[in-house]
Amino acid sequence: MKNPILVPELKDLLKRKRFKVIKSFFEDQHPRDSAEFIGFLQPEEIWKILGLLDKYTASEIFGYLDIDVQVSMASGKFKANLKTLVQEMSHDDRAYLFQHLDREVVNRLLLLLPAKDRADVIRLTSYREETCGAIMTTDYATLLITDTAEAAVRKIRRDAPGKETIYYIYVTDPRGVLLGIVSLRKLILAKPREPVGNLMKGDAIYALVDDDQEKAAHLIDEYDLLALPVVDAEHRIVGIITYDDAIDIIREEQTEDMEKLMAISGGPEEDEYLEVPVWVHFRKRVGWVVVLAALQFISGMIIEGFRETLQYLIILAYYMPLLNSAGGNTGSQSATMVIRAIALNQLSAKDIFHVIKKEFAVSLMIGLSVGTLVFARVMLAPTGHEGIPPQLWIGKIALMISLALAVQVIWATVLGALIPMAANRFKIDPAVVSSPAIATLVDIGGIAIYFATAKFMLGV
Amino acid sequence: MKNPILVPELKDLLKRKRFKVIKSFFEDQHPRDSAEFIGFLQPEEIWKILGLLDKYTASEIFGYLDIDVQVSMASGKFKANLKTLVQEMSHDDRAYLFQHLDREVVNRLLLLLPAKDRADVIRLTSYREETCGAIMTTDYATLLITDTAEAAVRKIRRDAPGKETIYYIYVTDPRGVLLGIVSLRKLILAKPREPVGNLMKGDAIYALVDDDQEKAAHLIDEYDLLALPVVDAEHRIVGIITYDDAIDIIREEQTEDMEKLMAISGGPEEDEYLEVPVWVHFRKRVGWVVVLAALQFISGMIIEGFRETLQYLIILAYYMPLLNSAGGNTGSQSATMVIRAIALNQLSAKDIFHVIKKEFAVSLMIGLSVGTLVFARVMLAPTGHEGIPPQLWIGKIALMISLALAVQVIWATVLGALIPMAANRFKIDPAVVSSPAIATLVDIGGIAIYFATAKFMLGV
Repeated sequence: MKNPILVPELKDLLKRKRFKVIKSFFEDQHPRDSAEFIGFLQPEEIWKILGLLDKYTASEIFGYLDIDVQVSMASGKFKANLKTLVQEMSHDDRAYLFQHLDREVVNRLLLLLPAKDRADVIRLTSYREETCGAIMTTDYATLLITDTAEAAVRKIRRDAPGKETIYYIYVTDPRGVLLGIVSLRKLILAKPREPVGNLMKGDAIYALVDDDQEKAAHLIDEYDLLALPVVDAEHRIVGIITYDDAIDIIREEQTEDMEKLMAISGGPEEDEYLEVPVWVHFRKRVGWVVVLAALQFISGMIIEGFRETLQYLIILAYYMPLLNSAGGNTGSQSATMVIRAIALNQLSAKDIFHVIKKEFAVSLMIGLSVGTLVFARVMLAPTGHEGIPPQLWIGKIALMISLALAVQVIWATVLGALIPMAANRFKIDPAVVSSPAIATLVDIGGIAIYFATAKFMLGV
Repeated sequence: MKNPILVPELKDLLKRKRFKVIKSFFEDQHPRDSAEFIGFLQPEEIWKILGLLDKYTASEIFGYLDIDVQVSMASGKFKANLKTLVQEMSHDDRAYLFQHLDREVVNRLLLLLPAKDRADVIRLTSYREETCGAIMTTDYATLLITDTAEAAVRKIRRDAPGKETIYYIYVTDPRGVLLGIVSLRKLILAKPREPVGNLMKGDAIYALVDDDQEKAAHLIDEYDLLALPVVDAEHRIVGIITYDDAIDIIREEQTEDMEKLMAISGGPEEDEYLEVPVWVHFRKRVGWVVVLAALQFISGMIIEGFRETLQYLIILAYYMPLLNSAGGNTGSQSATMVIRAIALNQLSAKDIFHVIKKEFAVSLMIGLSVGTLVFARVMLAPTGHEGIPPQLWIGKIALMISLALAVQVIWATVLGALIPMAANRFKIDPAVVSSPAIATLVDIGGIAIYFATAKFMLGV
């Protein structure tokens, strides 16, 4: 996010060297707001402003800047400040920045960092994208199970300024194996000599470094955690994921699900809608549109097969768009309900028959409603009866059209629920089978149902 | 969430009165897991199990039970236990429970509570649904601006067990007006005599009691807050909303947006998919389906108006489903992109021309792609040329169909983006204009475009 509102004032203040005014202004702001205000300035101007502030505030603001602004700042020629900022940044933001820098800038920058930070960056950037390892941070506090409450509080006092969260502290054995968690609250309320082992909660909830980031977000959500410890294969703690990262993951996941559902491919772009170039928008959308258009050739072939029926009874064409759209709508509805319920862990593969039963009942009622509406419409249409061969009774045609429509609604609804359930059964992300894809399958089936019903009931 | 896996074992243990085993089992579990395991038992059985545990654990487990289980437990005849549980519950969960109980049960229960808790319940349940007041909790810690760090830590030690969070403490004047926030971390690290006023951060981010709950969730998300203070019109602090509530709100909002987008009406049911009765599913979905079906009568009337064109050139019917589906798909895509960008505050009303320009460019490229595909198809269809009057060149028909399709894609894409932008401009939730509604409007326009192009280009 960037906010241009103060850009002219800030440029002016910088030009007139009113550094005290600038400093006191930014000291009063939340670092996130500061980042918004300076996001539109030139890298050199941002460097000048950050140089006025203490290193903690400066690195916080830097961490809130958009990644492209960070990259252009880091790629310039201001190495001295950069080193301090990068050292003070939260470890996960820092790793994220390094992932976006040119190889050559990374190498130069790594040389400037102390060995410990260097190792941390290299480790955090080595995990596969979207795993817990890739998004975790390494600033967390640990205690030994043998420490006393008193010693623990002393330790935390000493280490606190560098840690992302000190409200939950992880208790390990000397090798770093996670044994439990103790809250700062408990430590403060405890008797000084009480060993940490007696105060901690064992059986901590954790994720593995290779677990998907969504798993971490779900655990944090379900158990209302402030932070989730991440352990390696030997159960040694190697990082934590905090609740604010969980919120970001949930939002990201939400965008991804909605886009998939609407047949938009590619992960969520981090850039904002207006900043994504036209051809990227095009690339994200064109694939499904073309594939589904090609699939509709089958509908065309079915209609062609019934050419004589259609030419004899042109009224059938009038209700084709309604048939397609009612099928698409009801199929999308049931798919959405089921995909959402799967995402919220409300449904699993074994529920498939319950789901089908429920959707069948719902669709029977919807089919009846829409069928009745259309029956009335066909009967009452003022001009629609022109061109109907006199030997066919209009009531029979109305019945045929509304019956086909009701069957289409039932077929669409059940298929809309069945496809995501089946995908889930075979460990495919249910949202991948997008709502337009379901609508297309439903369309093709619907056209066949429609003309077959006409041929069978009316004998045309 | 309920997990039936342990139900037989638990029933058996209860029957055999193995209370020690039950007690030690539940003491080792996370309260959330415990709630899952006992969720399927009868209320009396749950009461028995909770009675074995200390009141803190019992009330935590009770708070994690599904609301309908809580209600059926509270409505039975076990008042003594209930009073303790209700007193110990977190204040927001408690208010939520009271909102779901029968009037008569509420009155009986309120009489059992101490005056302070009674006043708290009455106040929290009086706020309008989905406002900050309705979801906030009243267990938070406050300090006076004149307190010293030492006194503050003493105060917190004393009050801590009853508070939902003590990691951020709210600093007020004697009337309770919110002046700032101080972290427990800062208090612990400070010199004992330092007054809280020097340690706190002023200019706290806050919400008003009447603000929408989504605003609170967004603030917590944007500023990475652990908790957000809620103030009344006089700026006095009256509650806090914690990050875990924000996660719940974001999830709820996400379900609501997806359902709206898919033309499913009604707020997100709290119950799970399988627990919602068939007729509620029906009621949530039937409205839009019927309305949109009725709108499709217009498509039918348009086709009827072109009856002679269609009968003369029956090939036009073969590509109608493709035309409708390509329009629907591209319209849904652009609507989804724009609705999502608006939800994430990336777009505002003033960006409307940028959006239209961008969507026009994207749709031109998609239209060209699909148009080319369909041109090739019409030219190469092995049997599709039967019944075409000899005086019409097939190339001209192919050009006409693909041109109409491209225009339809452009119209659909631009309309898909325009409608949510316009809704947003007039302060209507953009997701209300559902994707099926857009698809229907696009369909109707598309049919008109299609036949008008045919008449104009082919003169039929």
